Amino acid sequence: MQPFAIAPSILSADFARLGEEVDNVLAAGADIVHFDVMDNHYVPNLTIGPMVCAALRKYGITAPIDAHLMVSPVDRIIGDFIEAGATYITFHPEATQHVDRSLQLIREGGCKAGLVFNPATPLDVLKYVMDKVDMVLLMSVNPGFGGQKFIPGTLNKLREARALIDASGRDIRLEIDGGVNVGNIREIAEAGADTFVAGSAIFNTPDYKEVIQKMRAELALARP
Amino acid sequence: MQPFAIAPSILSADFARLGEEVDNVLAAGADIVHFDVMDNHYVPNLTIGPMVCAALRKYGITAPIDAHLMVSPVDRIIGDFIEAGATYITFHPEATQHVDRSLQLIREGGCKAGLVFNPATPLDVLKYVMDKVDMVLLMSVNPGFGGQKFIPGTLNKLREARALIDASGRDIRLEIDGGVNVGNIREIAEAGADTFVAGSAIFNTPDYKEVIQKMRAELALARP
Amino acid sequence: MQPFAIAPSILSADFARLGEEVDNVLAAGADIVHFDVMDNHYVPNLTIGPMVCAALRKYGITAPIDAHLMVSPVDRIIGDFIEAGATYITFHPEATQHVDRSLQLIREGGCKAGLVFNPATPLDVLKYVMDKVDMVLLMSVNPGFGGQKFIPGTLNKLREARALIDASGRDIRLEIDGGVNVGNIREIAEAGADTFVAGSAIFNTPDYKEVIQKMRAELALARP
Amino acid sequence: MQPFAIAPSILSADFARLGEEVDNVLAAGADIVHFDVMDNHYVPNLTIGPMVCAALRKYGITAPIDAHLMVSPVDRIIGDFIEAGATYITFHPEATQHVDRSLQLIREGGCKAGLVFNPATPLDVLKYVMDKVDMVLLMSVNPGFGGQKFIPGTLNKLREARALIDASGRDIRLEIDGGVNVGNIREIAEAGADTFVAGSAIFNTPDYKEVIQKMRAELALARP
Amino acid sequence: MQPFAIAPSILSADFARLGEEVDNVLAAGADIVHFDVMDNHYVPNLTIGPMVCAALRKYGITAPIDAHLMVSPVDRIIGDFIEAGATYITFHPEATQHVDRSLQLIREGGCKAGLVFNPATPLDVLKYVMDKVDMVLLMSVNPGFGGQKFIPGTLNKLREARALIDASGRDIRLEIDGGVNVGNIREIAEAGADTFVAGSAIFNTPDYKEVIQKMRAELALARP
Amino acid sequence: MQPFAIAPSILSADFARLGEEVDNVLAAGADIVHFDVMDNHYVPNLTIGPMVCAALRKYGITAPIDAHLMVSPVDRIIGDFIEAGATYITFHPEATQHVDRSLQLIREGGCKAGLVFNPATPLDVLKYVMDKVDMVLLMSVNPGFGGQKFIPGTLNKLREARALIDASGRDIRLEIDGGVNVGNIREIAEAGADTFVAGSAIFNTPDYKEVIQKMRAELALARP
Repeated sequence: MQPFAIAPSILSADFARLGEEVDNVLAAGADIVHFDVMDNHYVPNLTIGPMVCAALRKYGITAPIDAHLMVSPVDRIIGDFIEAGATYITFHPEATQHVDRSLQLIREGGCKAGLVFNPATPLDVLKYVMDKVDMVLLMSVNPGFGGQKFIPGTLNKLREARALIDASGRDIRLEIDGGVNVGNIREIAEAGADTFVAGSAIFNTPDYKEVIQKMRAELALARP
Repeated sequence: MQPFAIAPSILSADFARLGEEVDNVLAAGADIVHFDVMDNHYVPNLTIGPMVCAALRKYGITAPIDAHLMVSPVDRIIGDFIEAGATYITFHPEATQHVDRSLQLIREGGCKAGLVFNPATPLDVLKYVMDKVDMVLLMSVNPGFGGQKFIPGTLNKLREARALIDASGRDIRLEIDGGVNVGNIREIAEAGADTFVAGSAIFNTPDYKEVIQKMRAELALARP
Repeated sequence: MQPFAIAPSILSADFARLGEEVDNVLAAGADIVHFDVMDNHYVPNLTIGPMVCAALRKYGITAPIDAHLMVSPVDRIIGDFIEAGATYITFHPEATQHVDRSLQLIREGGCKAGLVFNPATPLDVLKYVMDKVDMVLLMSVNPGFGGQKFIPGTLNKLREARALIDASGRDIRLEIDGGVNVGNIREIAEAGADTFVAGSAIFNTPDYKEVIQKMRAELALARP
Repeated sequence: MQPFAIAPSILSADFARLGEEVDNVLAAGADIVHFDVMDNHYVPNLTIGPMVCAALRKYGITAPIDAHLMVSPVDRIIGDFIEAGATYITFHPEATQHVDRSLQLIREGGCKAGLVFNPATPLDVLKYVMDKVDMVLLMSVNPGFGGQKFIPGTLNKLREARALIDASGRDIRLEIDGGVNVGNIREIAEAGADTFVAGSAIFNTPDYKEVIQKMRAELALARP
Repeated sequence: MQPFAIAPSILSADFARLGEEVDNVLAAGADIVHFDVMDNHYVPNLTIGPMVCAALRKYGITAPIDAHLMVSPVDRIIGDFIEAGATYITFHPEATQHVDRSLQLIREGGCKAGLVFNPATPLDVLKYVMDKVDMVLLMSVNPGFGGQKFIPGTLNKLREARALIDASGRDIRLEIDGGVNVGNIREIAEAGADTFVAGSAIFNTPDYKEVIQKMRAELALARP
Repeated sequence: MQPFAIAPSILSADFARLGEEVDNVLAAGADIVHFDVMDNHYVPNLTIGPMVCAALRKYGITAPIDAHLMVSPVDRIIGDFIEAGATYITFHPEATQHVDRSLQLIREGGCKAGLVFNPATPLDVLKYVMDKVDMVLLMSVNPGFGGQKFIPGTLNKLREARALIDASGRDIRLEIDGGVNVGNIREIAEAGADTFVAGSAIFNTPDYKEVIQKMRAELALARP
């Protein structure tokens, strides 16, 4: 299992001063910058693309950037994010016909590759590409829609994914995205997640450091 | 004819400090914020969406924001940009089956509506909706691709569009986008444009004010 | 010019007793049954398809049925409507790549063929297929959306279409669809229409005969 | 297990007098009105949409209406069917990227939600949304094509689905659609189905009551 | 006006010995190899792609190859045909959103660029890209469907296209494709065409030379 | 288990003399002609379609032709390949919504039907159509992209597929496609494959017979 990592979703940050926001949240203890890319086709929303990612790198952000592609198709834009300095690039298996190929493209570009599973999507596609993923991301809300709560059934799905990852013996992060907060992060960790995306739970509070410390305190209590 | 307006394209600004960049360019004399929205479907690129527009408003930007939708379809996202505080919303007629309807949606939302014409696209769709547009935008490069030069044939197309607008007797801006710089802005104005998008020509210079002043000086020399 | 024809749109009829409704409206003096087909893709609505058309024929309706396809693509379903007993089959030129081919398919199936023009759509595609159309339908509202008023600019477009048809010397109906009622039908006829779709203006009144007679009275006053 | 229910598919009814047909089949003992919606995209056919459903409610039909959406995408039209008075709304998981979301939309609209499985489609997507479905519909023919026979392999699939439903301990109907008739309904019930769609087997007979009674007699003999 | 050129469409050749067929037809006097590419999306047929073109070059064919792309989208495959050794690459303007861009791609690749017009498609898109085309191809049948006759209205369209080309003062070929044969080639030439695609008229005869000579004899009689 | 069969992919043959090439490779001992159909949509490449298949039959090829459809949608073109004389027609389950239906279409046309699985695609769709397939094809590279190596994980997937086929007790070929050569064919056979597609491994050698004999020698050593 990977060490716990907090990954604030910059969708909840202030886009008018994004560099500063990201600096602040990293200084407050965050580990990974979660970067939500929506194309108004795979999901009904359009957010930010590779130029914004590149701007963060140029601004001086050196922390891992975890680009979550809620787009379809994925292959052309993977190249854009490789060039833009993404660390992880993850996509939804339904969004491409050639999952193995897209994973290879990401790794050949020097990035870490991952697959994202919508709440209802089975994990079985993982079986044949376990050696090509560095991250498994389970959605605990439906991507692209606001104001949702953590779907409780995701805890069981996390246990399944954890078992598959452990059985593989590989260094694969198990990330969770949607409705994570101080109140449920411990339970989520106990179900197997090691990487925690949180958007409004962090950026909508006055003190990023305080909430991240509370999350870490909860994680410290999580039983393995 | 409308008074001349300079509309810097924020695609060339620094996305890590976008509020500051926009503040600066407005303080340097720009009139309109040109906001390029690409969805990786209508054009092979994904840029920024309504949340970034809303962030600029929240940051305090009060200048007109001119959202150029290089997306398809357009109707759902029009609502997002109305809520996000756009002033103008323009789209490509090929990107929707229901041009008249989409123009109505924009105006019903309290925004000004416009149509954008790719370099090869005829202007004839204008004929039946002249009473529903507040802006006509001619592309003088192909949208969504970088590093292109002003297509010279656009000058004649500007003259045609100018004639149509003048014949209508309506207050309609005639905007030009692509390859505009200090060296050609006067000629472009003389062909009929009154609103000038410029990206790298402004943001890739150390002194925004200087370049905008040079543009205005050129415009002052333009023969009507 | 064709003799005037009133074409009630059965979208406003009672679908629970459609045969009876159509019988009644024909007995009340209507000439043509206008049959609106929407597929939830070309327009954001799904209405009725070929099985409903065939049911009207089986019920005993012998009046012309004018199937207006607001669908894309069109070729496969054209065959369905030929078999279902449609008299006219009209489609939108934007909805197919092969307009000439689709018109031929309709005529080869023994039906009359027509093209439909959205409010903003230019008429120029007519130029090369004038010998293959039996009907030109101008939309005076945006198809697929409810509660709209007659777009006034359509009057000029009718005059243009009328001139094209007259110049061709062919027997081509010029139909208008959207917001037609007793109050404006005369003006519309004077602009060149000979076939008048009306939905709620007829079916939402208690006495179909009365409203159709009023329409005919207005048409009788129309100056050629 | 739910009590047995007979659900005549109105695709086989007479669309010219649909209200009367539905009244008759309910009076003859049917329990649920099965409403087949096809959009000419998910399946190669276009049938009937929400306006027809609303007309049945206005006509006075109070029995459950089971809207089977053979359309893609599904989210926009789900709202139409909620407003039109549907009781159940079911869709195919392949027809949307966001299965969990679409199920939520249906329930938030006050309807019962269901998933439909094509003959070759695995049931595994059920696993993560068992708490959000009120109906599982197995297709025993390929939807959208006429004149097909019951696919025998569906019996085993019914047993699987029955086991999943029983294991969940939830009140979920298990519906079967395609080629059901008096001759096979008992065997199908023994495999686990509790809700039986039948189209031509009912509507193509002179006496709806007789055939429904025969079906019930067969069901009464089914071993649990 | 360009010198007359005969361009046999290899769709009618024997694909089992294509090199030999092309050799023979060139030896028989043909000028250009017309290469029909269909993708089963833009037209309902799938024919041959860039690998076949490259094979002809490798076989030793040095005559101009005129690749007619009946595909959508076009940009990615343009690169394939540049590499495969095409001389001309033509596409349909409806098949891409970015006509100017696609024309540029072709020329930047060292090929000659052209636009193809379906029977009903207006020529107006030509207006703004006349300086970027080397060939205008008018379809005199609907592409992708077999067994069609020359559409007579194409003669007038040829006259229009000829006038536009002559007015431009540029070296642009005016090609015609569909139903061309010995009996009508002279009339077609008189209407303005200089390049004549013929498939079955050549390849379905025992003696290619004889038919090509007859075509040339007819062309020699054409009044300018 | 079926007897071993070598299936050269004609994608690597010389398309300028395809009949001769296929004759030669069959004379050299090949059993099946593997025919790769790509449509530039399901995969980023366009190769050859039904006319080329028909030409091979007309040329005199009587060996089985195995048409691998890397296209989407599949139903219309299935008919083309039936007419063109294909023996096997295989498609990807993701490429159609109606897998069972498409399999039936193939068999009703007198051909043998198969399903193809991309490297990451689970086999579970096989479960409900085992009685309708004559061939299972596992891709050991990503289809449509050149220059790839055999993906090692495919060996385990072959074992799974072999077990499913054996458990069914049916005569179903298990074919492998991608990176097969003399060096790995034995291991692949031991994992369960009985039909071996090889392209460049055969056609890029001077002596087809020699390489096919070497493959057979390796196969003769394979432990069951």
